[in-house]
Amino acid sequence: MLEARLVQGSMLRKVVDAVKDLVSDANIDVSSSGFSLQAMDTSHVSLIAMHLRADAFEHFRCDRPMSMGMSLANLAKVLKCAGSDDIVTLKANDDGDTVTFMFESPKEDRVSDFELKLMDIDSEHLGIPDTDYCATVTMPAGEYARICKDLSSIGDTVVISATKDGVKFTTSGDVGTANVTVRQNTTADKKEDQTIIDLKEPVALTFALRYLTSFAKATPLATHVTLSMTRELPVMVEYAIQDMGHLRFYLAPKIEDEDMEGEDEAP
Amino acid sequence: MLEARLVQGSMLRKVVDAVKDLVSDANIDVSSSGFSLQAMDTSHVSLIAMHLRADAFEHFRCDRPMSMGMSLANLAKVLKCAGSDDIVTLKANDDGDTVTFMFESPKEDRVSDFELKLMDIDSEHLGIPDTDYCATVTMPAGEYARICKDLSSIGDTVVISATKDGVKFTTSGDVGTANVTVRQNTTADKKEDQTIIDLKEPVALTFALRYLTSFAKATPLATHVTLSMTRELPVMVEYAIQDMGHLRFYLAPKIEDEDMEGEDEAP
Amino acid sequence: MLEARLVQGSMLRKVVDAVKDLVSDANIDVSSSGFSLQAMDTSHVSLIAMHLRADAFEHFRCDRPMSMGMSLANLAKVLKCAGSDDIVTLKANDDGDTVTFMFESPKEDRVSDFELKLMDIDSEHLGIPDTDYCATVTMPAGEYARICKDLSSIGDTVVISATKDGVKFTTSGDVGTANVTVRQNTTADKKEDQTIIDLKEPVALTFALRYLTSFAKATPLATHVTLSMTRELPVMVEYAIQDMGHLRFYLAPKIEDEDMEGEDEAP
Repeated sequence: MLEARLVQGSMLRKVVDAVKDLVSDANIDVSSSGFSLQAMDTSHVSLIAMHLRADAFEHFRCDRPMSMGMSLANLAKVLKCAGSDDIVTLKANDDGDTVTFMFESPKEDRVSDFELKLMDIDSEHLGIPDTDYCATVTMPAGEYARICKDLSSIGDTVVISATKDGVKFTTSGDVGTANVTVRQNTTADKKEDQTIIDLKEPVALTFALRYLTSFAKATPLATHVTLSMTRELPVMVEYAIQDMGHLRFYLAPKIEDEDMEGEDEAP
Repeated sequence: MLEARLVQGSMLRKVVDAVKDLVSDANIDVSSSGFSLQAMDTSHVSLIAMHLRADAFEHFRCDRPMSMGMSLANLAKVLKCAGSDDIVTLKANDDGDTVTFMFESPKEDRVSDFELKLMDIDSEHLGIPDTDYCATVTMPAGEYARICKDLSSIGDTVVISATKDGVKFTTSGDVGTANVTVRQNTTADKKEDQTIIDLKEPVALTFALRYLTSFAKATPLATHVTLSMTRELPVMVEYAIQDMGHLRFYLAPKIEDEDMEGEDEAP
Repeated sequence: MLEARLVQGSMLRKVVDAVKDLVSDANIDVSSSGFSLQAMDTSHVSLIAMHLRADAFEHFRCDRPMSMGMSLANLAKVLKCAGSDDIVTLKANDDGDTVTFMFESPKEDRVSDFELKLMDIDSEHLGIPDTDYCATVTMPAGEYARICKDLSSIGDTVVISATKDGVKFTTSGDVGTANVTVRQNTTADKKEDQTIIDLKEPVALTFALRYLTSFAKATPLATHVTLSMTRELPVMVEYAIQDMGHLRFYLAPKIEDEDMEGEDEAP
């Protein structure tokens, strides 16, 4: 039996809204450690990994591990029916084919329950190796979202180059070429304006902009996003979900553009 | 001759916006008692009845009863041209084929007049019998609108069950099933948060959600909506238009779903 | 060599957004006096003339006059990437085939450069004769935009009649007829509410509403718009660009509607 009560219920909606355009159906795995979801996007290019820790819930009980297959579009429809301040409780029986979401308004004058049908989804759990990244850039999530959107109007791929001074995003297309550089800034008055670069060696990788832009749908979840990069390995784009867990996206670099990377490693 | 001056001119726009998607052409009847409109929606399923009392107008003169046939889409176009604080004056001659709307800005620096062509529309005035309803639910109009919208994403029909404790809206569809219960709440600090249930006997009726959702377009008119229900009779969904009159929608229940009603009468 | 630095960089975006739907490609001419653009709209009906004075720039250097052909859609894409408080610097070499826009955020933590490809565009510079207009109406830009939008829902052409008391906009269509009169108002408390009419003789001209509506895209540039009219000559619709220059639109009146003008010249 599963029963999990989350006071900040709107967090669930933000998580699902962040991934539902990338993944249509997915298994949400529950165990005593919490909720997790791992899935390739529908075009099998990027990998999504989400974890919500059990201790983030006001009440959490999961008698034995279970895997709940869901249409994320349907899940999003259900969560959209929760008020922004509603408390959300999930309930499921061990062998049931539904999961119930209960929404309680803070004033207790409205209570809703939505029973969502579960489905069988084949999926293999990929082991994601721990990587010692060469460059880790933590920047305002809104800034990252904006840069991805701006550059998408110019080109299809972006070179992200991290040096000790800053991180540069470069693209080009029919319109011309564009470079946006965000400088390291560890002393901004507001913590949410800070950009922190942790660098072992400069790195420059090329990515498809449409995936990076899609990852930015997680922006409402966190003030900052962290880009972790190492040559020839997938970038990890991570949004912390408050004190509750994380949502991570992995995207392999485009190798054919390696020549361009050389050009962009200069500061 | 008709001449009617309304300081709260934006009220007219809200009324027309609330019904123009249900009714394309309608007669607006004017007499010394005020304005009224009665029409079936274009698919002849629901009935709309509106009344604006003569005493709600700053100035009202109607020498003899007249019926003005109008395209509500065109009327909405004209009323959209009024500023939100404009004073609106209607003028029509007894045998004219136009009605003139005059809009005056509060600062008197802009004055507009729109002459709208009238048309002949066949219509029969239905007598709506006074009904002694079993259950009358007065709830926040925004809450009603939201529930209709939320449940529309799940199913096509809704069972509305009124008991002494609250009113429950139930639907189901491919996604699963949904129940939203709004509890009686006569002591909310803010009057606009109150939900009041006046019950002679519990009642549960099934309706097409698309009509209930369409009625919710009247939400800007009033803080509350009143649902009046009796077994096997049309529900009356009423929005008070301040101290000026009312806008009422009538919709017959779906009879084939009567079995479901039994299930939902339990509290 | 060209180098021009503008602290109010968002002004450029507003100018380009105001004309990009009328003109697809245009030459932007630069000389020691500043930037200017003159172009017919794509259907060769209206004329657009823009000038930004060199002294409006914090820094301005133009060694020799040059003409930079651009896709205004692409230019708009680039300028959309500037933050609303960014400082914009333009740079171009005398014989280059690109122009570079540099955007600096006020906190200097982000710097972007966009290199836009230039193109060869045939254009002839029309001499616009200085005209001694019969009537000049200066009215709130938002009011003008709203009237054009409102009347567009009723008809296709508008008669603009200026008398000493006010300016009247008249249209008609299937819905009926509409008149909006804005009264001269030189004493409004807020300067931005003032309407000033400078009249040598009353004038009434007929125009295609869709062009007047399109000109209103310049509304974000200025609090007021000035309509300058003389019988049988194009109206000049002018938006001042703060202390920096102007954006002017010229549109010839429809001659076939001259009879209507007579009707509307009465006050």
